[in-house]
Formats: sequence, C-alpha cells, structure tokens
Amino acid sequence: MLSEHDIIQKLQEIVDSPPCGVKGIGDDAAVIPLSETTSYVISKDLLIEDTHFRLHYGDPESLSHKVLHVNLSDIAAMGAEPQFALLGLSIPPYLNQTWVDRFLEGFVRESKKQSILLIGGDTTASPQGLFISVTLIGKAQNSHLKFRNGANPGDILCVAGSLGEAGAGLRALEKDIIGLESLKKKTLRPEALIHEGIWFGQRPDVTAMMDISDGLYIDLSRLCQASCVGATVDLNALHPSTILQEACQMMKLDSLEYMLIGGEDYALLVTISPDVHQSTSRDFTQAFGYPLIPIGKITKEREVILTQQGIPQPFAYTPFSHFREL
Amino acid sequence: MLSEHDIIQKLQEIVDSPPCGVKGIGDDAAVIPLSETTSYVISKDLLIEDTHFRLHYGDPESLSHKVLHVNLSDIAAMGAEPQFALLGLSIPPYLNQTWVDRFLEGFVRESKKQSILLIGGDTTASPQGLFISVTLIGKAQNSHLKFRNGANPGDILCVAGSLGEAGAGLRALEKDIIGLESLKKKTLRPEALIHEGIWFGQRPDVTAMMDISDGLYIDLSRLCQASCVGATVDLNALHPSTILQEACQMMKLDSLEYMLIGGEDYALLVTISPDVHQSTSRDFTQAFGYPLIPIGKITKEREVILTQQGIPQPFAYTPFSHFREL
Repeated sequence: MLSEHDIIQKLQEIVDSPPCGVKGIGDDAAVIPLSETTSYVISKDLLIEDTHFRLHYGDPESLSHKVLHVNLSDIAAMGAEPQFALLGLSIPPYLNQTWVDRFLEGFVRESKKQSILLIGGDTTASPQGLFISVTLIGKAQNSHLKFRNGANPGDILCVAGSLGEAGAGLRALEKDIIGLESLKKKTLRPEALIHEGIWFGQRPDVTAMMDISDGLYIDLSRLCQASCVGATVDLNALHPSTILQEACQMMKLDSLEYMLIGGEDYALLVTISPDVHQSTSRDFTQAFGYPLIPIGKITKEREVILTQQGIPQPFAYTPFSHFREL
Repeated sequence: MLSEHDIIQKLQEIVDSPPCGVKGIGDDAAVIPLSETTSYVISKDLLIEDTHFRLHYGDPESLSHKVLHVNLSDIAAMGAEPQFALLGLSIPPYLNQTWVDRFLEGFVRESKKQSILLIGGDTTASPQGLFISVTLIGKAQNSHLKFRNGANPGDILCVAGSLGEAGAGLRALEKDIIGLESLKKKTLRPEALIHEGIWFGQRPDVTAMMDISDGLYIDLSRLCQASCVGATVDLNALHPSTILQEACQMMKLDSLEYMLIGGEDYALLVTISPDVHQSTSRDFTQAFGYPLIPIGKITKEREVILTQQGIPQPFAYTPFSHFREL
C-alpha cells in the first residue's frame, strides 16, 4: 500500500534542492521569499470524505472550521501568521446549495475571525465524494521561522496542547458512542494553536517545531529524522486529560496508546534549549494559562525511545496513517 | 444544479474586498504583494477523475503534464512567470506504485522544463477516484500584471492559440473514434501559452487578458462582465484549423460550435488598444511564428453579440461547464 512517506521520499529524490530563501518539501509548510527579512509560508492540505471526515458526523460549518484549522496548524507550526487562503472544492451530486452555502459562509466567517482573506480557489463537480483542498499562506520574519530540523541533543522536548483526545473522539464517533461531546468536538472542530505557534516563533530558544497531526510518536520520529537526532519520551510525563481518561475507561481503550498514536491532535511539538527551558515554560503558562508539558529529551542516538522510570519500553502500536481505514 | 459561477458569486458577496496590492476572487489567479514593484500570482486548479479526465485515455505522464499546464495557463493569463508548485494528490486504491511514480516523475520533469520548483503539497488516500489539486505560484512586475477588468470600448479582441481542437479531441475520445491523434493530444497534453502570456504582460497596449478554458463565448462573457463592457465577435473571423475542420467533417460536428464553446483550449484572449493593434499583431507574429487573430471588438453595450457580415446572430449553444457530464 502506498504511504505518504514513500511519496515524499520519492519526491525528495527527484526534485532539485531549493535555492537560498526557499524551503521545499519535508516541513509543515513551504517557504518562499518576501523580502530580505520576511517570507511567505505556504501549506496545502487535502481533506477527503471518508478518509478524513464523514459528512454525517457534523454540520457544514464544523467541516469548514476543520479544513481551515488543519491548514492553520501547519502555518502555526512554522511560527508564521496566517494571511491568505485559497479554497478548492469538488462537490458530489448529493450536496445541495444550502449545504454548500453553509460551508462557504462558515469558511469565510472563521477566516475573518483568524484575519485570513480568501483570495481564490476552484470549484468543480465530483462524481463521488467531497474533496477539499485548502492552500493557506502565512507570513513571518525569517528570524521567527521554525523548522523540523533544528533540534539539538540535550534539548527539552515539549508539547503544547492536548494529546489523544481527537483520536479518542473519532473512535467514539465511529463506534456510535452516546455522549462524549467535548471529545468528539476535538476531532470535528479542532482548534489550531495559532497564537502559540507565533509565540514560539518569537523565542530564539525554541530550536525546532512541528504540529502533531499524525500522532506524537510518528511526528516526533519525523522531527528527529529531519534534525538527525533521536529522542527519549518519558511515558510517565504523558498524563491523559480527565476527559480522555474517562472516555478511555468508558470505551475500554488504552489512553497512552491514544496519546502516542492518535491522529489529528493539532498540538505543537517543540524542542527548547535546556538552559532556558524553565523560563520559557513559565512564560508560556503566563501567556496562555495552561502548561507547556516537558515529555522527554533530544538525544544523539538516532532513534525514538519510550522510557518508564528510565527503562526503555517497547513500542507496540500501529502508527496512525491517513492511508489506513478509519 | 450548482455552478461554479454561483459559488464565485456567493463568495464575492461574503468575502471582504482585498487590501491594496492584493487581488482576490474573480480573475485567473490571485495576486499578493512581493515588493513595491513585484507580486506573487497564485492559481489553484482541481482536476477530478471522470470530471476533467479519464484514466484510460492516457498515460500518467500525460496527465501530470496536463495538470501542470492547466495551472500554467492561469499564471500565463496574468502575465506572470511561473516559479513554484504545490501538488495535492488523493490516490484511489486501484492506482499502484508504478503509476504514481510515473505521474510524479512526469510532473517533476515537466516542472523543471518550465523552471518551476515543486516545494510542497499533500498526498492522501481516496476511497474512490483520483483527485489532483495543484497550486502554482508565479511572479510578475506589477506593471506587467494583466487582469480581466481592463478592456475598454473600442479595443480589438484577439485570440492567441487554437480554438475548438481540445473540445473536438475530447469528443473523439469519448466516441471511441480511431485516429485524430493530434486532436486528442490537444485535450490530453495541452500546452499553456506561457511565453505568449509573459509577452502580453510586457505590452502596455494589452488592456485585459484571460485564458480560454471554458470556451470562448463563456470566457469572453466573463471578461466583459469584469470590465463592465460588451463585445461583438465576427463569426467569419473564427477560422477552424485544418485538423479541426477535418475532424468535424469526420464526426459530423459544427466546427463553429466547438470554437465557441469547446472547453480546455488554454488559448489566450486579449484586448488591445485599437491604435496600436496592428503593430502588436505584427510583433506577435514575429515573436511566435503564428498570427494573433482579431475576432471582434469591445463595445459599450454590456452584452456579447455574435455577428456575420455585421448582422447579429443568435447564440444557440449550451456553454461548456465542468458540472456538465462529459
């Protein structure tokens, strides 16, 4: 089966290296120059019916909120401020004018709220299935741009935002579980950590950043690969939220599994120089009213190791993949 | 049935007007500022299996050529030079690794030929149908940018490139006609008029430009609407090419119909100040080795009128629409 990883690897083999000032394939978003000191940052995400969402789970406004925030999360993960959007919609015959109007109105309303201007796109018929493609353009000072490849051995690995809740929420929807509305909302209307991303961008001590969209374990592995480093993750530092804990008890799920491999968290994974980590964490809590969670360390050895009381633990889960059946 | 026109109209109602230096919905591509004197131009086109193409008509390389050139045509129509691409691919289970590799290799090869760097995108599984979304970014001096809204009454209306051939080629494919290979190639591997677009951009006497992707009649109507003008088109000036003529004889089709409403021409429609039209035409032929065809005039009256020997003719065709069944 084709994986996104194989396709990215293939493209990295055959595509020329970008010139100075341009950042190509392999990060959350691409970078093209704007001036000597600033850049545009461009993300492009596809959302496909019955791969990324099911129409009957939510209303059109939630879906347009989601497609915008999935892209916003990529822009945030670069440390950039969102500015412009292009929307591609391929509409199946079973969606009527009212549905499409509500989707568009929701998209535009949420864009305005995020100070994003919709500047273009394309609409077309789809013989089957709703296909959505958003291109989002952000702007950042070059000195504020964060990449996946800046982590150094010794850096403290931190997570901003919740882990596992969106994955467990999706599970609840798929299994037709009554209730757990706040968990379901995490997958139906994710909120990208835009302000946090911009804030991290302004901190020189944040050495690398990416968003966690495919699960902590797989995304951390990508960050480590890009930075030519490894990491240890202390499983005891992964505390499930109360709603995740309750939901996992109710559905008889392993909350740790969902925190490690549940997709669509749209949390931010950052690495921070060890000498300033404590002051950065303190400032973060002051700015956002919730803590930045240290979950491990960057290491020289190029592998991701889960530990408990310092003892390596086996990784026994199947990582989240968009190519896996929901 | 939902039309792209309705969706664009809806969006134009609810989206804020763009600030100075930004050009939003309603042209071939959006414009965002790069410097005081230059801009980035951004197009986003969707190509959907069984709406825009059928897999069994051609090889993966032809399809990747097509998706690139469909977007290139939008960039060309703005007078801009293509620079960067983002590729979104949603891949159905019946396409294997070899097919995808050939598609990607073809896309990257043609991009390199056109001096375009692939800088990002997204790949995902599609439960059914191949969906392709390309975002193309070009660059232009602001003084070279051409829009749909600059046509003035009295301007000469001209077409660069062939009309009707791609539409007739598609018809030949759909009807399983043997032969007519050069016509079929027009729909399977269209060539955007990139150099012509850049050339028109450099001529201040070219007052408006757009690409003809949905048929001359409907695209001219859009140009007129954007410019708050009308146009007369002299049907006697629409000469079918020899291959279109032969194909229409063979398939018992009206070549004029295909020239007026056949989609996917990717020709360029330009309006030129009447006083310099002759010298521009002469320079064009000298530069490109084929003529720029004058087909009519821009008028004050806000409607598009087809004429023959100066006498208005009824328009009796169903305009091309991506929402119509192929």
